[in-house]
Amino acid sequence: MIFDPGAPNLVKEGDLVQLHGTTHKNHLLVMKVGEVFMTHRGVINHDDIIGQPWGVRLESHTGNPFFVLQPGITDIVQSIKRTTQIMYPKDIGYIVLKLGVGPGKRVLECGGGSGGLTTVLAYLVGDTGKVYSYERNPEVQALAHKNLRLLGMEHRVEFKHGDAADGFDERNIDALFLDLPNPYDYLDQVSDSLIGGGQFATLLPTMNQVEITLKVLGHKNFAFIDVCEILLRHYKSDWGRLRPVDRMVAHTGYLIFARSIQAQLNELDSEEEASDIVD
Amino acid sequence: MIFDPGAPNLVKEGDLVQLHGTTHKNHLLVMKVGEVFMTHRGVINHDDIIGQPWGVRLESHTGNPFFVLQPGITDIVQSIKRTTQIMYPKDIGYIVLKLGVGPGKRVLECGGGSGGLTTVLAYLVGDTGKVYSYERNPEVQALAHKNLRLLGMEHRVEFKHGDAADGFDERNIDALFLDLPNPYDYLDQVSDSLIGGGQFATLLPTMNQVEITLKVLGHKNFAFIDVCEILLRHYKSDWGRLRPVDRMVAHTGYLIFARSIQAQLNELDSEEEASDIVD
Amino acid sequence: MIFDPGAPNLVKEGDLVQLHGTTHKNHLLVMKVGEVFMTHRGVINHDDIIGQPWGVRLESHTGNPFFVLQPGITDIVQSIKRTTQIMYPKDIGYIVLKLGVGPGKRVLECGGGSGGLTTVLAYLVGDTGKVYSYERNPEVQALAHKNLRLLGMEHRVEFKHGDAADGFDERNIDALFLDLPNPYDYLDQVSDSLIGGGQFATLLPTMNQVEITLKVLGHKNFAFIDVCEILLRHYKSDWGRLRPVDRMVAHTGYLIFARSIQAQLNELDSEEEASDIVD
Amino acid sequence: MIFDPGAPNLVKEGDLVQLHGTTHKNHLLVMKVGEVFMTHRGVINHDDIIGQPWGVRLESHTGNPFFVLQPGITDIVQSIKRTTQIMYPKDIGYIVLKLGVGPGKRVLECGGGSGGLTTVLAYLVGDTGKVYSYERNPEVQALAHKNLRLLGMEHRVEFKHGDAADGFDERNIDALFLDLPNPYDYLDQVSDSLIGGGQFATLLPTMNQVEITLKVLGHKNFAFIDVCEILLRHYKSDWGRLRPVDRMVAHTGYLIFARSIQAQLNELDSEEEASDIVD
Repeated sequence: MIFDPGAPNLVKEGDLVQLHGTTHKNHLLVMKVGEVFMTHRGVINHDDIIGQPWGVRLESHTGNPFFVLQPGITDIVQSIKRTTQIMYPKDIGYIVLKLGVGPGKRVLECGGGSGGLTTVLAYLVGDTGKVYSYERNPEVQALAHKNLRLLGMEHRVEFKHGDAADGFDERNIDALFLDLPNPYDYLDQVSDSLIGGGQFATLLPTMNQVEITLKVLGHKNFAFIDVCEILLRHYKSDWGRLRPVDRMVAHTGYLIFARSIQAQLNELDSEEEASDIVD
Repeated sequence: MIFDPGAPNLVKEGDLVQLHGTTHKNHLLVMKVGEVFMTHRGVINHDDIIGQPWGVRLESHTGNPFFVLQPGITDIVQSIKRTTQIMYPKDIGYIVLKLGVGPGKRVLECGGGSGGLTTVLAYLVGDTGKVYSYERNPEVQALAHKNLRLLGMEHRVEFKHGDAADGFDERNIDALFLDLPNPYDYLDQVSDSLIGGGQFATLLPTMNQVEITLKVLGHKNFAFIDVCEILLRHYKSDWGRLRPVDRMVAHTGYLIFARSIQAQLNELDSEEEASDIVD
Repeated sequence: MIFDPGAPNLVKEGDLVQLHGTTHKNHLLVMKVGEVFMTHRGVINHDDIIGQPWGVRLESHTGNPFFVLQPGITDIVQSIKRTTQIMYPKDIGYIVLKLGVGPGKRVLECGGGSGGLTTVLAYLVGDTGKVYSYERNPEVQALAHKNLRLLGMEHRVEFKHGDAADGFDERNIDALFLDLPNPYDYLDQVSDSLIGGGQFATLLPTMNQVEITLKVLGHKNFAFIDVCEILLRHYKSDWGRLRPVDRMVAHTGYLIFARSIQAQLNELDSEEEASDIVD
Repeated sequence: MIFDPGAPNLVKEGDLVQLHGTTHKNHLLVMKVGEVFMTHRGVINHDDIIGQPWGVRLESHTGNPFFVLQPGITDIVQSIKRTTQIMYPKDIGYIVLKLGVGPGKRVLECGGGSGGLTTVLAYLVGDTGKVYSYERNPEVQALAHKNLRLLGMEHRVEFKHGDAADGFDERNIDALFLDLPNPYDYLDQVSDSLIGGGQFATLLPTMNQVEITLKVLGHKNFAFIDVCEILLRHYKSDWGRLRPVDRMVAHTGYLIFARSIQAQLNELDSEEEASDIVD
């Protein structure tokens, strides 16, 4: 696997490497003997990287410094090729924690786009879990598929070409994320696939979408509904002049969380109790 | 394992169950045949829960409704017994994502407190990873240890009684979190334990602590320093009157991230190159 | 006038005084020879305050310290007796600046409540301006009237008992603020009273109200519509441990601003141009 | 006076006019018979504006629409020529309200820059108040002076060339604002000029400046210290897709407020009381 979570401390062929300049510019590349990496800041041979300890500082042939790093999962998400809108780490971190995505979990996403969230989900469920990724647009999905293959996590994801309206094949899913503009149209399909008590989440840019989703959620088998937004404020790291940066992302989307409940099944129980009384 | 990530859809003995009332009040308990759960809202027999599908709605003997849920990792963190200050999910989610905590990773924390973050770390590294948790206060650590045992994740954590000043036994750690008021005093110890390029993080309540930490980080083997804060704003989920809640948590702490680099080693390289020229 | 903007530096009879304890507790009272002020923190004679310089520190008979201050306009707004919801200084400051409320201006408010905003408007327009304050509830208006009289600014306000639906008597008003749950129902009345280009503003707690208001504004003679919200974050003023306070007001309301334009008159112009062509 | 607060409803020669295109681009100009306004969006004759009602929609010779508006005070502040950093309306609104700037008040500012805040202060104190504006840089002050003259408010401001270190000539000032990087160096001068209980304010970009200011304030004759920051979040005004704008200003500065108190005088009182006992 290319993106090796338990990497030793020396770079070897096949490793995914993040070359990070002293500014914010950085590149992800897979190490291959004999290959050459060319940038406008100079040339670096892969052979000069392989065998070096992680964290080392190298220089291109023009003397520009680069650090050799294992890419973090947020670096990867922000670097993958994409044709669809990005999800931000501030949102992803909170979503996967609330959804309880972790080793062994079976999670489903629909509207996976180019695979940003897919990558994090696959990373977190590990080899013992599974991600089911539905997408209607084959070209977008092909890109996500390619991204996951490059990262060596292809086997953790089952890519499914399909529309949320037709429902999902899986049952007893631990957590489900819809990345669609109209999640409110597919809440029955979500209920069908989620395990009782399972977490549902979605991210919506406008208040109008939130309103409709809340309205429909209230009439379906969901409880413990939570709407929130996450704001991330960066600070300049100049210790003698500590202050926030001048501008920030003011909005990505509103997050909605809800848990699937067995309300219909409960009503069945009530009827049985009623018949008990008759007896 | 009590906290079973791949649980089937029926509650069985030994499962960790979250009993969630219709309000925000909820309880975590481990299912045991014959046991009785007593609350001021009525009595429920464990035997009436075992065998039920997850997500079912039950009632106490006084008619109060409870939902039977698999607790999410955030529910667990917020419910564990503690004697130290809580870390909030908004911060934890961003921290673990930035640190790249996932299956198979080896992560180290110091100042683990009652085990809130420890629980999430153990959850995410899975059975193939390891958490090294240092704590100076034996009583606090005993509580964290007990919490992890109850959650069935004890084997994923190595609890170590020790002070950051003495350094950490582990090397080539993937990510390291200091939950201490003076992280700036232990940055050499952090460098020693982190793999080259490994992620370091800390959370500090005051600007003064941030300033000192930034100042010291600038003189040590760290790069790509990032200071930020996460704000979480909840909304009332009443769809016809959508608006933020009246009050919010204004501050938990400032997050600092930095990556360990091999600067000294790089200077060694430079000397070797120099000697090359002599030859 | 009790609330004397150009006060000399000694307290005299008739002055409005803010007695401010060392904590946040404070009292507003009008100085009167022979009167006694009793609080649970001790007794202070008005005669002991009169003749003192502003800013002096006195003590009650039980030794509790009080500072003798000229109340700021924000102190007054937060201290006036009220039966309706408060408007916050963070919102008031931005609203009056955007509305251009200042000496000599003629401003109109409807839904004035207990007179919080009325007080600030009257303060800012001075003796050369005028505030027209409409309110449907006579009891609420009586309280506002009494508050303004106590502050010596009664003559700057024309209190009018009336409903927005019936329109406002005034024309060529410089700025107009509606403090009503359904401002969208009265936008024609607003247009009729505002001078061309005049500023309209309203404050609404929910997104749904904002949506309707925006929708209706788009069909009326308004332009340069602006929707925003103001967040105020206080910091602990302990210099060695600088940090935001733990909790903050997360939401008061969304502000909407729009300027009245002469679109109908412009269409009249177009017709004249059309007739020009005929001629 | 050009910027006439109580303007009639028709534009006349000498009026300050804001020509506002349908986008956010706008221009301020003083009406003069015979003059021509040229922009890249076409030509408009002043004579075609004079005599029109405020709020009218005109077109340039190329057919581009312009609205004829009385500029708001915020429009003016954002349009004045400047060589120094701008203060934002979000901050100005809160500052002037907290400082109680209104008709008849005597306020002092130091570090006035190009006159942004000066303009608002002059606007609010009216003809019965006075603004004392100190500035060390003669060229910057000349620009501020010119700006105020153009706005017809020159007579409300006394421009003084001077350094805060030398103190201010005025006494019993109602409110005082320092726009300097090191306000902590001049707090005695502030105390000398402020009336007892008078409001002091400053705006500082970095936490380090705030810390020092708080530290020094604690040793001087000030009380009721408040540190805060104001965040302004704009929303897209598209009613069917209501959402915050994508990016916002994350930081302008931290605001510090404090009130001057008569602590030394109070200690004098105590001595007198002591001598009373002797007698």
